[in-house]
Amino acid sequence: MIEHRIATILRSSQPEETLVVHGWVRTKRELKGFTFLEINDGSCLANLQIVINQDLPHYQTIIKQINTGASVEVGGVLVASQGKGQRIELKAEAVQVYGDADPETYPLQKKRHSFEFLRSIAHLRSRTNSFGAVFRVRNACATAIHQFFQQRGFMWVHTPILTASDCEGAGELFSVTSLNLQDIPRKENQEVDYSQDFFGKPTYLTVSGQLEAEIMAMAFTNVYTFGPTFRAENSHTSRHLAEFWMVEPEMAFCDLEGDMNLAEEFLKHIFRYVMENCEQDMEFFNQRIDNTVLETAENIVNNQFERLSYTDAIQILEKAEVKFDYPVEWGLDLQSEHERYLAEQLFKKPVIVTDYPAQIKAFYMKLNNDEKTVRAMDILAPKIGEIIGGSQREERLDILERRVLAQGMKPEDLWWYLDLRRYGTVPHAGFGLGFERLVQFMTGMGNIRDVIPFPRTPQSAEF
Amino acid sequence: MIEHRIATILRSSQPEETLVVHGWVRTKRELKGFTFLEINDGSCLANLQIVINQDLPHYQTIIKQINTGASVEVGGVLVASQGKGQRIELKAEAVQVYGDADPETYPLQKKRHSFEFLRSIAHLRSRTNSFGAVFRVRNACATAIHQFFQQRGFMWVHTPILTASDCEGAGELFSVTSLNLQDIPRKENQEVDYSQDFFGKPTYLTVSGQLEAEIMAMAFTNVYTFGPTFRAENSHTSRHLAEFWMVEPEMAFCDLEGDMNLAEEFLKHIFRYVMENCEQDMEFFNQRIDNTVLETAENIVNNQFERLSYTDAIQILEKAEVKFDYPVEWGLDLQSEHERYLAEQLFKKPVIVTDYPAQIKAFYMKLNNDEKTVRAMDILAPKIGEIIGGSQREERLDILERRVLAQGMKPEDLWWYLDLRRYGTVPHAGFGLGFERLVQFMTGMGNIRDVIPFPRTPQSAEF
Repeated sequence: MIEHRIATILRSSQPEETLVVHGWVRTKRELKGFTFLEINDGSCLANLQIVINQDLPHYQTIIKQINTGASVEVGGVLVASQGKGQRIELKAEAVQVYGDADPETYPLQKKRHSFEFLRSIAHLRSRTNSFGAVFRVRNACATAIHQFFQQRGFMWVHTPILTASDCEGAGELFSVTSLNLQDIPRKENQEVDYSQDFFGKPTYLTVSGQLEAEIMAMAFTNVYTFGPTFRAENSHTSRHLAEFWMVEPEMAFCDLEGDMNLAEEFLKHIFRYVMENCEQDMEFFNQRIDNTVLETAENIVNNQFERLSYTDAIQILEKAEVKFDYPVEWGLDLQSEHERYLAEQLFKKPVIVTDYPAQIKAFYMKLNNDEKTVRAMDILAPKIGEIIGGSQREERLDILERRVLAQGMKPEDLWWYLDLRRYGTVPHAGFGLGFERLVQFMTGMGNIRDVIPFPRTPQSAEF
Repeated sequence: MIEHRIATILRSSQPEETLVVHGWVRTKRELKGFTFLEINDGSCLANLQIVINQDLPHYQTIIKQINTGASVEVGGVLVASQGKGQRIELKAEAVQVYGDADPETYPLQKKRHSFEFLRSIAHLRSRTNSFGAVFRVRNACATAIHQFFQQRGFMWVHTPILTASDCEGAGELFSVTSLNLQDIPRKENQEVDYSQDFFGKPTYLTVSGQLEAEIMAMAFTNVYTFGPTFRAENSHTSRHLAEFWMVEPEMAFCDLEGDMNLAEEFLKHIFRYVMENCEQDMEFFNQRIDNTVLETAENIVNNQFERLSYTDAIQILEKAEVKFDYPVEWGLDLQSEHERYLAEQLFKKPVIVTDYPAQIKAFYMKLNNDEKTVRAMDILAPKIGEIIGGSQREERLDILERRVLAQGMKPEDLWWYLDLRRYGTVPHAGFGLGFERLVQFMTGMGNIRDVIPFPRTPQSAEF
């Protein structure tokens, strides 16, 4: 007999096929003379209905062993289902119970559980409908990302996780050490003796692979990173994780225009891919979690993104007949309420805001001729807010050095980054996408801790 | 004019096409009346030859600006090449120099550089033939891995990098902390006060995602990890990195047989994919780096792997008419010389050794009925040695608890891992592949530091 995944059976198998399935029991209903099981193997949201007739040898013993959470192998014949809710069901001819699940202690009994409770059993929560759907969509997003870039000749580059450079966001870095924290070796002047540490100097977890991605783009033209990044930020919000995955493409011979075009195409590709490949899961989110997720996805896929400068955005916001909590003023960053006004109320579609004031953006962004703004861009989407941030990079050595100094950094610490401008420098650009934010927006899940299998947050590194 | 990557042009463009290319100059040859440039954009090993005629406006100024390492945009018409070595070349009609590269200081002048020297300029080395080829093959391996699993319905799962569990290889863990190493807070008894640390307890970088992958397999049946892992091992060999990428598939309802079948199919898929998609790069490695790499790849793709038990392997080795440096004795681990004898001299193809003694393998491997061996498997390949290690996992709660205790670990630290055996346990199996080892074997590169963009080794975390 051939072994099948439930997704394939429900999609394409026909009555009278003989097969074997494996899965975990979601529910059991004992009726007179037979028992219905719903089993799930994680391949899709839907369960396969199994009918076990009482003439099955050892019927009573088997049925007793089977409870919600038990693992089974069932061989049998597919039959057209007489009940509603499914096209076909499996008539069991042989049932093997691999492992039971004591109803007295198994936490996932058939009832609604809060996401907060499920977080405390993250080793079991993937067996629920919601988390099954979340992680299937997460995988589909990841696959869509690789597919998008590989089809376009981009190289996936693995930028380092461990870094001795603390150029960005110094306050929020995790330290990494092989020293014994209980007994840190010290030099005569009582400073930490890093010469005894693994790397011989202070080392941190990366907050971004962008600078190293720029190195690789200067040899391979188009590259992207897709890996974990870290922030030791003590935020207890529903939008922050200490460990999260980032996607950062970087393109040589590319300006801000090309950057925006790619980012728009990229987002549309991911949303389209997920809608096509996870239809059932997306329907589930729209029904049970947030009834705007399909509308938002459609909006992203079907609209040409609006593009306007920060300066124009400020003028629009100043004239808006809306009371904002935060001030609108040239030079201040846009707040979430401003971004949502632009995307949701005014344009009713994704908006790309460009050319932000230099002082609120990073040192590596290309300075415009006005010397006041930089070639940055943020993509704001309805219901979502900022989803992508990017820029054309400063490729002129003298201006970059000036900006490094202005930010209080030492050019010698960035010698290799500056070398990229010294030898064969080119216009180049890129952007960053927080992967968990994307999955959160895609699914409508309210808390970012619920879109990564094992969330790392202040005071929590369980599993 | 349409913009093209050089790989596409060389593969499929025809004379008389008009186009624009971007790249970095590898060489310049000035002849009477015209200049030849070889430019490379990282899309393939080969360069595109450019011919610049002296009637080009500003010919002298442009030619002077262009040296090895300079970045250019060239628009022109393709013509059939009269020289040998290339089918077509680009007759320049417009040349723009983006950035020059001073021949006095640019380190990558046209001559042979040692890999050791190139490691010290890892921000530039990708612009050489060797590293260009290495990272294209690395990307092809990664793509082949995702493709293999996604086509088979496996879910890519992101297991945590930060972990509070030190169950495996405790001595080789990096600590991660948000505490100031200079001023570690202490409790009254002088112990480190971890309550003030970010996660409230000692935290480490992961050495393997397997245990968490098992969690996910117990919901989604077939999953794989592909992410960075870490060892704070003070090894200065050509085979060790402190930061490296691992691939770890995990399959529910799968025994050792299924595990071996998948691993064999998997390896064949990757080698086949790279030979088909990186033909030029693989030829380069075979000619310049190691003239056995193609033969090894063919051997892996074309042979059915030999399978034998550890006990049989020991008997074979005991009878072998070869002098080994290390003793051969039931209960001792196989050494590299033994593995190579089996794969290279005896079977002359990949060999899977199974059922190792329990005491030399990890606690989670399934105990055989003999109570002496476990359902482990290692794949040994000619010229390569061990490339994959895997096992069927112990799914029986009582035996697993006993083995956890026997290894001096506390079952309560592994409560969630044991829960997987408590609720709906199933036979399951998986394996691990060190990604850099794979790339090293594929390319024949002698030092593992040369197959990852920015290697992390003792005393070295530059870039």
